Amino acid sequence: MYYFSKSANMSFEDAVATTREVLKSHHFTILADIDLGEVLRTHLAVDFRPYIILSACSPQLAHRAIEADNEIGSIMFCNLLVQQHRDGRVEISAADPAETIGTTNHVELTWIVRELRSMVQQVIDDIASRPASRPVLRDRDKASRQLAHALP
Amino acid sequence: MYYFSKSANMSFEDAVATTREVLKSHHFTILADIDLGEVLRTHLAVDFRPYIILSACSPQLAHRAIEADNEIGSIMFCNLLVQQHRDGRVEISAADPAETIGTTNHVELTWIVRELRSMVQQVIDDIASRPASRPVLRDRDKASRQLAHALP
Repeated sequence: MYYFSKSANMSFEDAVATTREVLKSHHFTILADIDLGEVLRTHLAVDFRPYIILSACSPQLAHRAIEADNEIGSIMFCNLLVQQHRDGRVEISAADPAETIGTTNHVELTWIVRELRSMVQQVIDDIASRPASRPVLRDRDKASRQLAHALP
Repeated sequence: MYYFSKSANMSFEDAVATTREVLKSHHFTILADIDLGEVLRTHLAVDFRPYIILSACSPQLAHRAIEADNEIGSIMFCNLLVQQHRDGRVEISAADPAETIGTTNHVELTWIVRELRSMVQQVIDDIASRPASRPVLRDRDKASRQLAHALP
């Protein structure tokens, strides 16, 4: 499996805000906030679900990595993906750095990747373990509510 | 080798502008413009050389890829790195999508990665083949100029 992923028991908006907060608490700097769903909706005129990517980096690790390999900066980011599936489920995921960066052959990078990998897993675990900040409406819940309204 | 790379015969600023222009001409959308050099200078108080990353994506390919694999969005970017080395040389590089995305086992993704790989190579070749837009001062040139000034 090339990525780490967990479901978050909160709304999409809360999941994005929580991801941002947890990244900061793990000393990640957020470099970019990319609304890929909006890019696809605008460019391809398709109906696309909420799909946001937070590009983050650990300045310490990035610096050590670039010192070991000039080119590594372009893959030294962690892109945290927050997406809402059609059934309403909100999921947080990130590629496993061992799969994306781990293909290089630098010894120093092996250690950096190991450290980064553990940080990314920790960020995702932290987000998933947060209690729901407000009730999350799933399709199933919506259906029950509609049924309740239809009752006399 | 996990990345594509070429030297650009132009100043750092021109290389960033040219990369932006060539990406657009190949139908890439620029999602983020990340001055990683500045991030390192600010966060770590180190003296760091010009090091900018343009995160780009092909909306067409990204859409096809996400349809094949929900999680792929987080690694579907192409990060074009423009950096200036200590000797003044300006280099453009990007990770080879076959190394970063190619580790997944989806058949549809194999084709997308092949297409993206060829686009990224083309972008880098295009930038490197541009004539110098204005004279580039290298350390060696500066030394010759200083020498010329010193002559009677």
